[in-house]
Amino acid sequence: MRKRLHHAPVARLATVTPAGAPHIVPCCFVLEGDTVFSAVDAKPKSTLQLARLDNIRANVVASLLVDHYEDDWNRLWWVRVDGLARLLEPDDMTRDRALALLGEKYAQYRTMRPEGAVIAIEISTWRAWP
Amino acid sequence: MRKRLHHAPVARLATVTPAGAPHIVPCCFVLEGDTVFSAVDAKPKSTLQLARLDNIRANVVASLLVDHYEDDWNRLWWVRVDGLARLLEPDDMTRDRALALLGEKYAQYRTMRPEGAVIAIEISTWRAWP
Repeated sequence: MRKRLHHAPVARLATVTPAGAPHIVPCCFVLEGDTVFSAVDAKPKSTLQLARLDNIRANVVASLLVDHYEDDWNRLWWVRVDGLARLLEPDDMTRDRALALLGEKYAQYRTMRPEGAVIAIEISTWRAWP
Repeated sequence: MRKRLHHAPVARLATVTPAGAPHIVPCCFVLEGDTVFSAVDAKPKSTLQLARLDNIRANVVASLLVDHYEDDWNRLWWVRVDGLARLLEPDDMTRDRALALLGEKYAQYRTMRPEGAVIAIEISTWRAWP
């Protein structure tokens, strides 16, 4: 379960809007212990995408999913973690640590250090299927 | 955008729990017009997975995402649809239509017709990136 989350290159992050609607976006991330870090990076963004940050400011509950699909349905799996999210400010030393870890996982981040917000999710619940 | 959603074999469905937390699960689905259908099928389930149905009964707002990831970040994309979800009861003729469409898309459903609930999401908003 931990290994699958650790090695997945992409996850889907779900948050809840201030109006109470679900919001979901794919994201790069890195796992350390029971914390997931994800950065708002330099990939082109529509303004709407930053809804994830507004959502977390209004409602800290977040859920992150990785899954595997293939035509052989005997080989499907997913891992989901739920927890509380917070935004790491530029003066937060944890932010530097998160960016270093993201750089180890993604070559792109080594040449294009994310300048935007960094999200930290403290995992409270792990779930996996099957 | 429509083509990408139509052809994706798997999507991630986000709903909101009665407690206001995000819930996210991968799912098979089919698109017809501006409606997405997804069935609770015979893949082994933990009881928790059916949370998606309880969530929809309590809060009809749903969001469904398909995305593409690869190491070349110039080729990433996603498509997200938001809308209102409802559960199609066994006596609803739309349910038969949904199952027929799901059978056309997934060979597995032709030999293993889903007996569980069928979710219909009437799309109100399409979003895509980049």
